[in-house]
Parts: sequence; structure tokens; C-alpha cells
Amino acid sequence: MRIVLDAMGTDRHPGVEVQGAVQALRELPGDFTLILVGDRERIELELRKAGDLPAGRLEIVAASQIVAPSDPPATVLRRKPDSSIIVGLTLQKKQEADAFISAGSTGAVMAASLFLLGPLPSVDRPGVATVLPTAASPMLLIDAGANVDCKPGQLIQFARLAAVYAQDVLGRSNPRIGLLNIGEEPGKGNEVAVETYQRLQESNLNFIGNIEGRDIIRGACDVLVADGFVGNVLLKFYESVASFMYGLVDKELSAAGLSIDMDRIFRMFDWTEYGGAPLLGVDGISIICHGGSPPRAVRNAIRVAVQAVESRMVGHIKQEIQENRSADIDPVSSTTRHQTTSSAGSVKEKA
Amino acid sequence: MRIVLDAMGTDRHPGVEVQGAVQALRELPGDFTLILVGDRERIELELRKAGDLPAGRLEIVAASQIVAPSDPPATVLRRKPDSSIIVGLTLQKKQEADAFISAGSTGAVMAASLFLLGPLPSVDRPGVATVLPTAASPMLLIDAGANVDCKPGQLIQFARLAAVYAQDVLGRSNPRIGLLNIGEEPGKGNEVAVETYQRLQESNLNFIGNIEGRDIIRGACDVLVADGFVGNVLLKFYESVASFMYGLVDKELSAAGLSIDMDRIFRMFDWTEYGGAPLLGVDGISIICHGGSPPRAVRNAIRVAVQAVESRMVGHIKQEIQENRSADIDPVSSTTRHQTTSSAGSVKEKA
Repeated sequence: MRIVLDAMGTDRHPGVEVQGAVQALRELPGDFTLILVGDRERIELELRKAGDLPAGRLEIVAASQIVAPSDPPATVLRRKPDSSIIVGLTLQKKQEADAFISAGSTGAVMAASLFLLGPLPSVDRPGVATVLPTAASPMLLIDAGANVDCKPGQLIQFARLAAVYAQDVLGRSNPRIGLLNIGEEPGKGNEVAVETYQRLQESNLNFIGNIEGRDIIRGACDVLVADGFVGNVLLKFYESVASFMYGLVDKELSAAGLSIDMDRIFRMFDWTEYGGAPLLGVDGISIICHGGSPPRAVRNAIRVAVQAVESRMVGHIKQEIQENRSADIDPVSSTTRHQTTSSAGSVKEKA
Repeated sequence: MRIVLDAMGTDRHPGVEVQGAVQALRELPGDFTLILVGDRERIELELRKAGDLPAGRLEIVAASQIVAPSDPPATVLRRKPDSSIIVGLTLQKKQEADAFISAGSTGAVMAASLFLLGPLPSVDRPGVATVLPTAASPMLLIDAGANVDCKPGQLIQFARLAAVYAQDVLGRSNPRIGLLNIGEEPGKGNEVAVETYQRLQESNLNFIGNIEGRDIIRGACDVLVADGFVGNVLLKFYESVASFMYGLVDKELSAAGLSIDMDRIFRMFDWTEYGGAPLLGVDGISIICHGGSPPRAVRNAIRVAVQAVESRMVGHIKQEIQENRSADIDPVSSTTRHQTTSSAGSVKEKA
């Protein structure tokens, strides 16, 4: 298995990427090779600092350009063909690698992944899934901001994409699907939410109903389906409020001369544990990390990529989407409703 | 000034309401009389427990019915005409009172307020504003869940309603208006957000641009404008995550035998400080409190009601909406754009 790591994506590239790669090779199980893409000399310099490594499990592929945050995502393929993002994804496109990880410009990684890997057949729009910490198990939010103004069929596809990921990578059997909404009852919410509720209810997914903002922290479901607009607001707010509260308590404790293991208490809110956000629905594996990722986040993104490849996630997604194509995309008619019922449980059965 | 308090709204009515009323009469400045509406005997019993009160500043108006959470809001007027919500709001409708406060069913209070007080002229939809704690000053979020699928004109009216409230009740001069969105740049977000951004930019409001989820906690604006769907998700999530984190740290401190003043640290997240959520855009004052409100939240809602009456908030809102009617509701044409510019600053000038 060959995992490509864009070495030029984080705010402190390529040092952070190299350190994350080294941690992954030393600590993670699995028979994988890492391919670092970027400025060969700088990568080699960082590697020398890192010391000994398992032989033959790390390669460098040179890329002379770096995508800047200011580069419009749609122009990157044309204007920066030798960037680490394009070179890295091309390796996967040419089947010389199995997965791609980048902490570079989210928009550019999405656009290039969509163009180079392509969407899976019958996938309307790929979605970005991201892990939200909860008091119970982490919850997978889809979509985290790639798609706004989603239609019900898109949201239902998101549920399927994330359900397979939750099974294959997070190890959830029969993942509980929740719809982010503003009340419990079926008729609640905006037009899209009302229709999506009904169609999820009729689907073969393990839909457990509407999830309100207040239900998230207790981990009320495994997969939380939302339009990318509200998903993005929620995600960014969550990250900021957790770190703000950490600061608030930490400051107070220091002032009082007291000490408790704050990092342990707040570990659940530490997104570096969860290893990046997969772009689901493309014909390949593309994982997007924060630009501010520390080495540990890169290491964990590699862990996630390895799991996704090992579990054959993309194949499972392809099958799941294909089997439910007519029910998800077409308006519900009595015929499609019947088909949905008779083919029920393709996700459930895998559990 | 006469403030009506629904005595039957909280989960522990009428005890909580009576205690809140008593606190308000003892502690708050201002020349106001409270009218408690509900079960006369039970209210009197609670009042006897409360001890001496300033003479002549508390009245009871009997209401024999209570609105249950299960009562469909639209049916309350017809089926529960002698409920504390209907009787209380009718006092304001008949100009026998200046404001109404209830911790009863939010939907019922909204529906009855809209029906009995009526919307202000040219107000498309009233909105619910609510205070979000931040590291700086509290931020006013509008809409908190009353309206989903909002059009740009509605969002701009929400901005006006909340701007007046922020000035008159929260004491903000020239309130900074932000649009909740998923990126900083003007073209970001869904269709509604993109158009709303442009029209807010062209308006006479003090619009400071898009506010992302991560900008909220630092208090990046005074008034945060959002569709009620995302507003409600955000609000409920915020309340739950703050209380969850409080519990997390508190438990850890107790286990370690340590003690810091948690209530002081987390006071900013204590919604009881902020006194309920006003329904803005109706021809009167209607303030909605949590069903789980303690006496202090009721007391603070009374404080807010008194401030709204004293500052003549409803008159200011009426004027603000009237003056900007054409710019807010009609599609922007060169003529209306010119009018907007020439009448610029009706909110700013009040500052």
C-alpha cells in the first residue's frame, strides 16, 4: 500500500509533514509506504534531523510548486501543474498510489481531487466528512462545508458515504444516521430538512431521526447529516469554543496556583487525534488536514488513510451508491419506494 | 409602566415566576408594576412565602388554563382562550400593559404574540433575538429559530430589528452587524448569503461583513444575522457545549480535591444573566424565556422588558423599518440604491 503525503501543505511545511510521516512509520501498524511530495532538498534536510527510519518505506517525489491560499482552487491544475497537490494526486490517478493526504488549501485539494480522481458513478456531489468530539463516541459530520444549498438527494448520498466511512474506518457497525435539524418531530425544519427526513425514513439506512444542536455533545448518532453551510458554521464554532474554554479554565487555574491535567480532560476536543477530513464520493482516497496541523495530526491522517485502503472503503462506497441510486436521486414514487424496501439493509447487513 | 409576567410558564411554575418577580421588585430600578397572570390561589400562596413587598407594585390577573408543550401553537388562541399566555398578551393588546414575558411554550408565545399584538407595518416576519455570550461583549443572534428558509430581505429586516434592540436595550451605539457565513469573502456561502451580503453592504446599516463560526466566541460583531435554521442549531449547540464543559472541568477538580470559583469563570456562559429572547417586529414587547428558567432569569427578563419600554424600542423599530422599507424588501434597483444612500445612517445617527 502506498500513501502519498503532500509535504508542502501545513503552515510549517515540510518539517511538520516529515515529523508526522516519521511518527507514522515508527508507530502505526500496517504494511504501507509513504511518498512525500514536494521540495526534495528541504524534505531530505528534515529527514536527516529525524534520524533512522525503517528501510524502504519512505520515498520522495519532487514537486517544484506550492499552492498558496490565495490561488483560486479552479486554476491550480492549469497554473500549478507541478505543485505538490497536483503531483501527489496524479500518482493516485495513475494508480501508483492508493491514498492522498494534504494540509494545503482545502478548496484546491477538493477541486483537484474531483478533477483528477473524479466522482464515483452516480455520486451527485462529493462531501467532506469530519469528526466531532462528543461525550460518547466521536460523531462524523457530513458535509463540513464543501456543498451549500444541498438538495435532499445529496444529503441522503452524504449519509451513505459517511455511513460506509463510519463502518470501515471508525469501526461502527450499523451506524446511526441523524439529520441535523431544529426540532425532534418529522415536520420540523426548512423545506429541505422536511423532505430529507421523510426520504431517510423510507430508506434502508439506519436513520434515527432529527438531531438538534443540543444533542450533538452527548453523541446522539454516529453520522450527522447537514448542508455544508450549517455544517461549516457548527464545525468552526465548535473548534473555537472548545479552545476558548480550555484557555479560560487554564488561566484561572494558573492564577490560583493550581494544576490539573487539562490536556487529558480536553483531549476529546483535540482534533489532532482524529486525523483529517476525508473527501467522500471521489474515486479514490483524499484526506484534508488543517493548515495548522501538528505532526501528530499528520500521523493520524496517515492512520486513517491506511484504514481506508485496508478496508476497501472506496469499493464499498461504490457498491452502496450503485445499489441505492434510484431511491436516492429520483423523487420518491411508489415503485422506487418498493425497491428501497426490498433492497433494504445493504448498510445494515454489513454490520 | 406595567409589565405582564405569565406566572405559569416555567417547569416549576408559579414558584419560580413569583420569586423572579419579587427579586425584580426588590432589586431593579425603574417605576414599574408587575402583573402576574395565572392561577390566583397558587400565586398568592407563593407570594405569602416571599414575604413583604413594595406596596401596590404587584397585581394578579386570573387565568384558568395553562398551555401545554403538546398544544399546537396555532390552536392555543381558540382552544385555550383563558390561558395565561392569551390573557396576558390580551392585556397588552388592550393597552392595559406595556410588555409581556413568558417561559411557556415558545411556539405558542410566538403565535399568540403575532396574532394579538400583530406585526409592525412593513415587517415581513418577526424574528427571535437571543444573546450569545462571547469573550468580549455578548452578541445578539437573530433569528434564533422562528423563521427558516429566510429570504435576503427578511434577513436585512432582522438586522434592523436587532440593531435597534442592541442600541436601546444592550446599550450598543452604532451596533456592528455581521452575517453568519462560511467564509470571509463576499462571494462565500449559499445563494441567500451571497445576496444578503451584497444588500447589507449597500444598506445604511453598520455592516462589517461575514462572520464565520470561529469568529463568534471573540465577539466579532454586536448583531449576528442568520437564518433561523442555522441560528437555532448554533444556539442549542452553544448552550449544551458550555454546560458540558463546565461539568467536565468541575468533575475533574472535585476528583482532584481542588476548588476554583467555577461559577465565576463560567458566568459568561450563564444564559440566566441575559433575560430572555425578545420577539422583534411585533407591535409590542414579548419576551420568551427558557422553560427551565430559575428566578434570576425571570428577574432579568423583567429588567430587559423595563429597558425596552423605557427606551421606546418599539417606536424606534417602527421608524427604522418604515424609513428603509423600499430598500429592504424590493429588489435593489439603481433608484432604491440611491434612496438608500441618501437616507443613510438612520441607525448610525441614533448612536
